[in-house]
Amino acid sequence: MQFGTVAHRGRTHAAAHTPDGWRALPAPDLSTHLAEGGALTFHQRLGELLEGAEPLAPLPRPAKVICCGLNYADHIRETGRALPSHPTLFAKHADSLTGPTDDVRLPAGTDVDWEAELAVVVGAPLRGADRETAEAAIAGYTVANDVSVRDWQYRTLQWFQGKAWDGSTPTGPVVVTPDEVDPRGGLVITCRVDGEEVQRDSTATLVFDAADLLAYISTFTLLRPGDLVLTGTPGGVGTAREPQRFLADGDVLETEVEGIGMLRNTIRLTASPT
Amino acid sequence: MQFGTVAHRGRTHAAAHTPDGWRALPAPDLSTHLAEGGALTFHQRLGELLEGAEPLAPLPRPAKVICCGLNYADHIRETGRALPSHPTLFAKHADSLTGPTDDVRLPAGTDVDWEAELAVVVGAPLRGADRETAEAAIAGYTVANDVSVRDWQYRTLQWFQGKAWDGSTPTGPVVVTPDEVDPRGGLVITCRVDGEEVQRDSTATLVFDAADLLAYISTFTLLRPGDLVLTGTPGGVGTAREPQRFLADGDVLETEVEGIGMLRNTIRLTASPT
Repeated sequence: MQFGTVAHRGRTHAAAHTPDGWRALPAPDLSTHLAEGGALTFHQRLGELLEGAEPLAPLPRPAKVICCGLNYADHIRETGRALPSHPTLFAKHADSLTGPTDDVRLPAGTDVDWEAELAVVVGAPLRGADRETAEAAIAGYTVANDVSVRDWQYRTLQWFQGKAWDGSTPTGPVVVTPDEVDPRGGLVITCRVDGEEVQRDSTATLVFDAADLLAYISTFTLLRPGDLVLTGTPGGVGTAREPQRFLADGDVLETEVEGIGMLRNTIRLTASPT
Repeated sequence: MQFGTVAHRGRTHAAAHTPDGWRALPAPDLSTHLAEGGALTFHQRLGELLEGAEPLAPLPRPAKVICCGLNYADHIRETGRALPSHPTLFAKHADSLTGPTDDVRLPAGTDVDWEAELAVVVGAPLRGADRETAEAAIAGYTVANDVSVRDWQYRTLQWFQGKAWDGSTPTGPVVVTPDEVDPRGGLVITCRVDGEEVQRDSTATLVFDAADLLAYISTFTLLRPGDLVLTGTPGGVGTAREPQRFLADGDVLETEVEGIGMLRNTIRLTASPT
């Protein structure tokens, strides 16, 4: 089953993506739906068909957006590092997120790079959870691109300032429930820049999978329904290429995870992106 | 002028700390007061005197809690690093915060360390702000201790997992407005463990001051009223001592900034701190 947050006639709705099209759920967005205890199932009351609805960022207001770096074996090797014993974690904000077809606006003159990622949506409160409990609390999966401003990321030891630019992280277009996709079984994850494939891997090669990450994070902080965990990016990022390659103004960035969907965002690099 | 969030007869209130005592503001806490456009001034309507009120974490729900590391010259030297050209930033969550007299509960067997800090409260929306605009948007200052789980902090390159334990960061007891304290002029900041002073410095030696940090952060993300920026800790942390010294179960941690106030928290290290 697939769910999302959609725009329809000037309003937003949490919605189920049915064979007929988008059908409204009784909440203005999926963050609210999950926060109010709503499940991601078709067994609940589905509302009117929303003709011409357009998907937005499915989770507009996660309290926590936690990201894992260095989590695909190939990408770890391209950065010259050994396989990790613990996940490398950092945080973004809800403001960092943007929708599946929105422009990504960043400052001209910065080194803007792509990071295709599988993202996990938390469906139940988790604290001190074991792997099994964490697995059962996965509401679904979506696609993200952890677009990174590399020169800011590497100004200091901590990556945050290259990762938390407002509106820099496209997400969506839908949240797919675990009965429909199994990342451990291997979903192809790809990233394209103006049609040229720059990343391709399988989610089966994740060092720490979704349940591992939720359980680990829940050791130190409460995860709530609607929180988002980005699982890391495969090899092929621009900063690790020789020569290095970064995104240019007008580049079209496509990010796809098999069985979930595709983001298609245009990069806009301007003097004043705010 | 001094403001805070207080507990009084089973309720919480945003409140002004007047010469008579705590007086209620028309909001349940200071996060709500600031989010609703409330200013930190005595010119507004002050409510009833709240006899026996006890200060809580002044900002219970910042959308953003952004921290600066390596920002006092002495502390930078003790970690063996050069003075930075850019602030080192990382994020916590609202859940990371706790009150000025609350116990700090963390797992037994971890390396728990102190970090006395001056914290800045944002009073107006800031994006792409220059230093002067950022300075004018400072609502006030409070005290924080960025209590850090060092073994988790250094498991990977990113500090987040040692910094974002729920309830690990005491804050308060009051927010003092900039007309009353001037950190650039030099406020003594101290940390004591069971009465023994372990940190002492002056906020005049901050490499990046409050206005610098707000302006820099606003380059990449919107700061909103009630957001919290922790400005970093002076030298004297336990991990940099020889031999290293960490907090033990039952230790009383006192954190004080001259002209603002003191936090007094007992460290509780247990098998299952959740």
